[in-house]
Amino acid sequence: MYTLYYSPGSANMLVHLVLLECGAPCTLVRVDLDAGEQRSAAYLALNPNGVVPTLVIDGVPHGEAAALAMLLLERHPDAALAPAPGDPGRADYLQWMLCLANSQQPLFRQWFYPGDHLPAAADNIKEAARIGIEAGWSRLNAHLATHGPYLLGESFSVVDLYALMLMRWSRNMPRPATNWPHLAELATRLKSRRSWKQLCDAEGLVEWA
Amino acid sequence: MYTLYYSPGSANMLVHLVLLECGAPCTLVRVDLDAGEQRSAAYLALNPNGVVPTLVIDGVPHGEAAALAMLLLERHPDAALAPAPGDPGRADYLQWMLCLANSQQPLFRQWFYPGDHLPAAADNIKEAARIGIEAGWSRLNAHLATHGPYLLGESFSVVDLYALMLMRWSRNMPRPATNWPHLAELATRLKSRRSWKQLCDAEGLVEWA
Repeated sequence: MYTLYYSPGSANMLVHLVLLECGAPCTLVRVDLDAGEQRSAAYLALNPNGVVPTLVIDGVPHGEAAALAMLLLERHPDAALAPAPGDPGRADYLQWMLCLANSQQPLFRQWFYPGDHLPAAADNIKEAARIGIEAGWSRLNAHLATHGPYLLGESFSVVDLYALMLMRWSRNMPRPATNWPHLAELATRLKSRRSWKQLCDAEGLVEWA
Repeated sequence: MYTLYYSPGSANMLVHLVLLECGAPCTLVRVDLDAGEQRSAAYLALNPNGVVPTLVIDGVPHGEAAALAMLLLERHPDAALAPAPGDPGRADYLQWMLCLANSQQPLFRQWFYPGDHLPAAADNIKEAARIGIEAGWSRLNAHLATHGPYLLGESFSVVDLYALMLMRWSRNMPRPATNWPHLAELATRLKSRRSWKQLCDAEGLVEWA
């Protein structure tokens, strides 16, 4: 039913973790980013932006990791990975998903690809991204200190999986997310879940696994 | 039932337009950003990030414009501002909301507040944001050319309202969104809706109105 086009450790991680938590079988197809496969005509036909992930659902390709995670939650309500529509916690779920999508994740794009828009300014853009990412970790850590242990409070949710992916992306930065104690605790807690081990095995992740 | 804390033309526009399209009455409370009201203790108690919008729903304050729009759609399904869960168009709706939230909107933050993270690099960051925003308009314009006239195709949706807000933000840039023909056509179409006129009246918008 599902086919996930992925590159180990890329934004597909969020979608992959959600599929694993839902117990939804999926076929994995690796896209070799180093070889430029994401720019092949075959892949661009699936994903015009030439990025991973692409999730093919019943034969139709879709993109945008956080949107796919939200869609999968609607298709697998029994997995209870977020407060359902009408639940008092619904606003918080949406707010945190969008918050990670429009603050922390775009800064990572600038950290990893700082020269995308203005190559001459790459160093400045990378440095500003680092500062912004660290400020984001501080906010998340403060939130967990008062509202944890999970980002939505007492209950584990898809928001934690999203944060876990982003935290892993910071592992080689000067101050990785796990330098913040409540984020470190969250990461440890999430990495003890079966889905994390399954993900690392399936994507072949060894670093920060 | 709803109280919207707003500043004319700010990110509250999206939430405000959705409320108007839903026919949901709301009380407006203006936050004077120039006077720094967003950093007052009273406002920070509602919105710890000190930004607009805040939407108070049944006495509980919530933030994050796109998340609020998505929440309102769930609370007012009759307004039919997006494909419902289970609809074949649902993935596209989520994909475009998240795409605007994690690409175009964060670049506007950098365009308007380029010195937030690294003041010395403000000029570079502003210039990179401009290039990124223009690339985004080109992608949206190309999408409309083949899949329009609305962002989700034949039907108007909340994604168009989101794009309209972002297009207005570009009005004083070197290349405003309306320099792209299909975006200009979309803006004209959306500005002919009753909700746009109501919004401009209520928020007191005169420029690009």
